[in-house]
Amino acid sequence: MGRETYWAEDPDPLLRVGAGFRLADRDTNATPGFDGSKKDGEAALAEGAAILADLQERLFAAGTLGDRRSVLLVLQAMDTAGKGGIVTHVVGQMNLGGVRYAGFKRPTQEELAHDFLWRVWNHVPGAGEVGVFDRSHYEDVLIGRVRGLAEDDEIERRYQAINDFELELAETGTTIVKVMLHLSKGEQKKRLADRLDRADKHWKYTPGDVDERLLWDSYQDAYQVVFDRTSTAYAPWYVVPADRKWFARIAVQHLLIHALEELELDWPKPDYDLDLEKARLAAS
Amino acid sequence: MGRETYWAEDPDPLLRVGAGFRLADRDTNATPGFDGSKKDGEAALAEGAAILADLQERLFAAGTLGDRRSVLLVLQAMDTAGKGGIVTHVVGQMNLGGVRYAGFKRPTQEELAHDFLWRVWNHVPGAGEVGVFDRSHYEDVLIGRVRGLAEDDEIERRYQAINDFELELAETGTTIVKVMLHLSKGEQKKRLADRLDRADKHWKYTPGDVDERLLWDSYQDAYQVVFDRTSTAYAPWYVVPADRKWFARIAVQHLLIHALEELELDWPKPDYDLDLEKARLAAS
Repeated sequence: MGRETYWAEDPDPLLRVGAGFRLADRDTNATPGFDGSKKDGEAALAEGAAILADLQERLFAAGTLGDRRSVLLVLQAMDTAGKGGIVTHVVGQMNLGGVRYAGFKRPTQEELAHDFLWRVWNHVPGAGEVGVFDRSHYEDVLIGRVRGLAEDDEIERRYQAINDFELELAETGTTIVKVMLHLSKGEQKKRLADRLDRADKHWKYTPGDVDERLLWDSYQDAYQVVFDRTSTAYAPWYVVPADRKWFARIAVQHLLIHALEELELDWPKPDYDLDLEKARLAAS
Repeated sequence: MGRETYWAEDPDPLLRVGAGFRLADRDTNATPGFDGSKKDGEAALAEGAAILADLQERLFAAGTLGDRRSVLLVLQAMDTAGKGGIVTHVVGQMNLGGVRYAGFKRPTQEELAHDFLWRVWNHVPGAGEVGVFDRSHYEDVLIGRVRGLAEDDEIERRYQAINDFELELAETGTTIVKVMLHLSKGEQKKRLADRLDRADKHWKYTPGDVDERLLWDSYQDAYQVVFDRTSTAYAPWYVVPADRKWFARIAVQHLLIHALEELELDWPKPDYDLDLEKARLAAS
């Protein structure tokens, strides 16, 4: 668990989707690997932010000097599960200059005129970058499947196409971390009600949110298929309990920290003559 | 000065480039409008971060419901002046989902095959967004002028082209805030020396940094011309003293807060039937 001190047990294997995984069996309110309170979790998030920022800077530094590696975080979830909070409170702690964030919305006409992976390629992280997909190509087998936005054959084809795409990224140096924030249907109801009750939250609600909610079970089934078919050794899925926002944040932060620690990033050696440059600077 | 409590005087007019402005007369070590210590400044930054995040969310919310307005922060500076710190500690406090960050580096062959404004258009903020240019089209009249990267006539042409471009943005709803972080030559020497002295900073140094430093006076002159020709009522320049990083951060944060407050952003009214949606949610 590297430099983080606050985990009772490494959450990585506890959250990872492996053989026989059943989404329906997972507790959305649990805090796997963490024994503390909400207050402890908030302190942990601040501690982890400094660790994550340091590791991300090392990755970026390496990238400037020829290291081709990168990290890609894929975020998927039902509405209100807390993706926005992850982006603000976890991703936002890193230096934006090295973060490539992409929020995928309803595809444009131009995007629909191409294969579903076309728009995604444009946003994959480059050398030294941490890419963040806020929604992703998985929408094309989630809402795509639930709402029948493509023929059945095409939906079936996409799972393997996704695996091939992610293998291509992994083989060329991208560590892929895929996260589903796992919310209960009851907690979603509370959060949507909150949006309808508060004037400063009305804009976050659209009638489509309830339309999607009415298809809850179909979405859960579609996620199960995603996990069955696309959780691979080179691009594993993690299911993070999300009823407690503070836990989801430290968990996703940990997954990023873990991915970066695995890269064993040293500060790169300078590619210039240190003594010569010190002399030039002194004379300037 | 709105909701910020820590300014002795509104720094906006103190930092703004007006008629008769002389860069050479400005103190890089000053803290215009702020009487406190470094510690006070750090506390102020945290207080301002919450204000800025709230205002940015209001802008984003308005954008989702048809408000076309946006904000564009342009950052220019000599090396080591602290642009990276502004991005991390000021821009990073906003929700990335509504921030459009663009770091402009040495132009690619494709970019060079186009007019200098071509690559910039691709990154202007959309409705509801805060755009951030980390370096910008001003490089084309700064390094472009100092190093003679274009013919004199072309460099001359660009000042008016920039004003026309910025007027187009302003007329279509973009509030433009242009900031030059103003560092002393002595402070830059210290910061470059620090990069050469620390293994974790070596990657931030390139021999080109001293090459540019040797042209210090030419760059100061080029900035003066920029201020004379492109500080307009619709896109003013601000020169922020940057020898004290903590001051530069609260100053830029204030300029963003001020720009957003001027928009008088209320939470948008819902474009759906609130009671109907409450009933639908309750039944779901």
